[in-house]
Amino acid sequence: MNAPASLLTRKADFPGLVAAEGQPWHYLDTAATAQKPQAVIDAMSNALGRDYATVHRGVYSRSAEMTQAYEAARRRVAEFIGARSENEIVFVRGATEGINLVAQSWGGLNLKAGDRIMLSQLEHHSNIVPWQMIAQQTGAEIDVCPLTEDHLIDLGALEQMLTPQHKIVALAHVSNVLGSILGVKRAAKLAHNVGAKLLLDGCQAAPRMRLNMQELDCDFYVLSAHKLYGPTGIGVLWAREELLDTMPPYQGGGAMIDSVTFEKTTYAPPPQRFEAGTPMITEAVAMHAAIDYVDALNLESLFAHESGLATTLRNELRTINSIRLFGPEKSAGIVSFEMEGVHPHDLGTILDEENVAIRAGHHCAQPLMTHLGVPATARASFGLYSDESDIDALLRGIERTKRIFGQ
Amino acid sequence: MNAPASLLTRKADFPGLVAAEGQPWHYLDTAATAQKPQAVIDAMSNALGRDYATVHRGVYSRSAEMTQAYEAARRRVAEFIGARSENEIVFVRGATEGINLVAQSWGGLNLKAGDRIMLSQLEHHSNIVPWQMIAQQTGAEIDVCPLTEDHLIDLGALEQMLTPQHKIVALAHVSNVLGSILGVKRAAKLAHNVGAKLLLDGCQAAPRMRLNMQELDCDFYVLSAHKLYGPTGIGVLWAREELLDTMPPYQGGGAMIDSVTFEKTTYAPPPQRFEAGTPMITEAVAMHAAIDYVDALNLESLFAHESGLATTLRNELRTINSIRLFGPEKSAGIVSFEMEGVHPHDLGTILDEENVAIRAGHHCAQPLMTHLGVPATARASFGLYSDESDIDALLRGIERTKRIFGQ
Repeated sequence: MNAPASLLTRKADFPGLVAAEGQPWHYLDTAATAQKPQAVIDAMSNALGRDYATVHRGVYSRSAEMTQAYEAARRRVAEFIGARSENEIVFVRGATEGINLVAQSWGGLNLKAGDRIMLSQLEHHSNIVPWQMIAQQTGAEIDVCPLTEDHLIDLGALEQMLTPQHKIVALAHVSNVLGSILGVKRAAKLAHNVGAKLLLDGCQAAPRMRLNMQELDCDFYVLSAHKLYGPTGIGVLWAREELLDTMPPYQGGGAMIDSVTFEKTTYAPPPQRFEAGTPMITEAVAMHAAIDYVDALNLESLFAHESGLATTLRNELRTINSIRLFGPEKSAGIVSFEMEGVHPHDLGTILDEENVAIRAGHHCAQPLMTHLGVPATARASFGLYSDESDIDALLRGIERTKRIFGQ
Repeated sequence: MNAPASLLTRKADFPGLVAAEGQPWHYLDTAATAQKPQAVIDAMSNALGRDYATVHRGVYSRSAEMTQAYEAARRRVAEFIGARSENEIVFVRGATEGINLVAQSWGGLNLKAGDRIMLSQLEHHSNIVPWQMIAQQTGAEIDVCPLTEDHLIDLGALEQMLTPQHKIVALAHVSNVLGSILGVKRAAKLAHNVGAKLLLDGCQAAPRMRLNMQELDCDFYVLSAHKLYGPTGIGVLWAREELLDTMPPYQGGGAMIDSVTFEKTTYAPPPQRFEAGTPMITEAVAMHAAIDYVDALNLESLFAHESGLATTLRNELRTINSIRLFGPEKSAGIVSFEMEGVHPHDLGTILDEENVAIRAGHHCAQPLMTHLGVPATARASFGLYSDESDIDALLRGIERTKRIFGQ
């Protein structure tokens, strides 16, 4: 499996991919957060320095220009994910806040005792806890769709379980632990057949797959910029405009109002209704740069590149007796495993000494760990800058770990 | 009024203070958002590049180091505002989110029909709308403390109005429109006398006054980093630890839990309980740099410097017949005025041509505009980098405006 030429030289664009001693850093934790290309760092520096001003409020030209840059970022996101309009793009802190916003605003309006919420066994805590909170507030109840034997969300089971009482189905587009890819169009059809809305957690999909909201046929989609090679502190909630129109504000403050008196406040239309306070101005500008960077590389190539690396790694790990692999064979660039007799944290610590960074833990997915029958897994996740040298370094580290543990 | 020597050379630290043609930019909109010193921009660049990793979750050393940097920022904030412990510091998106968090989490738990919320006539929308939202949810009602003739919150009236039905008093420490400074200790005593909590909106105070939470004797305090010479996308909610302990989470997700099952989720202690999802990692690091920068200049000097500039400007504007000044004589570096026969927006546009940036509008304080009897004011606000040259440029622009309007 060779990477496209356009990807092979990309490591140099990422100042974070250098270990303390100037050695290459084999960063295999991109599913937690992606490293940033210099273009993103430069965009942030210019926005904080030369170009800095507030948005939406100034009468001077620099503020007008920054407002244009902020709204250009919104249009770029809309184009990138195939939204019908930039009015469908709400800037949030990250995917977690996006789900909380939907749960509280849409859920608070639409859920009541007797209603049901459908999640799956592999969801990230950020797609579980907000639903537990609104369920507790409204009296709605949660169901959990099981997984197939190869750790995909079981859409056959979903079809059997869904009822007209289900008002929302909330699923990971790509599992952050296993790389499992959801059959979105079928999930959307099943949800809509019973009159439920479909929310997708797109944190792991957005950096790896070409998204088109209209083709996916979901109702809500959330993603985090920091996993898309962009800055921390910003993400996106996409929702159909007609849904956003019906939803009450989530937070109150400046910029989200039409007029305020102590007797009566009227709210601005979406997306401003959901963006109270001074927004993440420089983060939006830097996110724009991140999308430009990723889009120029072609997402279809990125997906093939990263899933190819995942297949290569799975095939190598399969030859090691003490290693047990989790997740489907066809993964979106994320590989979870355990090593018999070695706690994932110990493996991670030994690998760190070799300048290899993996994640070890429950990955904010404790119910999935319970299902897998382990307290934690080791996870290697790829990014657009990953290549075979990273796999080689990981395998060398695993061999060393085997020796240390006398395997 | 001469600035301390340490302030006189500071403009050079701020790359934003240069107009497009290389001319000085007379930035008089620091109350909207402050320009950033190069030290903050550099901290952000390093955090996004060389040092980038996620926090709280990695088993590799770079992630451990970033976690230390993130928590060091929390300790620095605690020290800067005189908190008893870093556990009293919750990182939020900004002051607006901080107030929403308190209104929903503390208010949701403690407010009920028949209870009353005390605000004032000069509050920013961000300290009005969140209370209107929780009032509507709980059946509590809002009272509005009037202003004195010189536009301070009238604490005599507050004393008369407060009753045991008042559960919370929420006031601006410094008015964003007028620069009026609240008599905090008396306000705290009055609130506590009736058993109410006191929340202070510290957005304008934090960049201009030495804060000490224990001396102020309030219960909640919020501030935004972007007004404190730091990045967008991050702010602080301070609350007494024993209050935070009682409060339910505001958002659900990763990092704020102890354990998650579909049957029962238990939450982490504060402050983590209130920080769901990947936090504003690089923003926290850059905010740390901003606080270091401001603190080194001495806040007492900054206050004297900016309030001295405000007095100078008021005295100059007073000599112009067509200008009406708002706000108290002693202002924390913020001056609002109107110019007879000239809409503030027109004034702002003409000043912009002279590389002078003021704000014109309702400043997210429409109820205050109603009280002042104007739809909008022109506002000049100073920062640590402001000096007499900025006042001179503003006055030249006002003279030109007078000529254009035939005054």
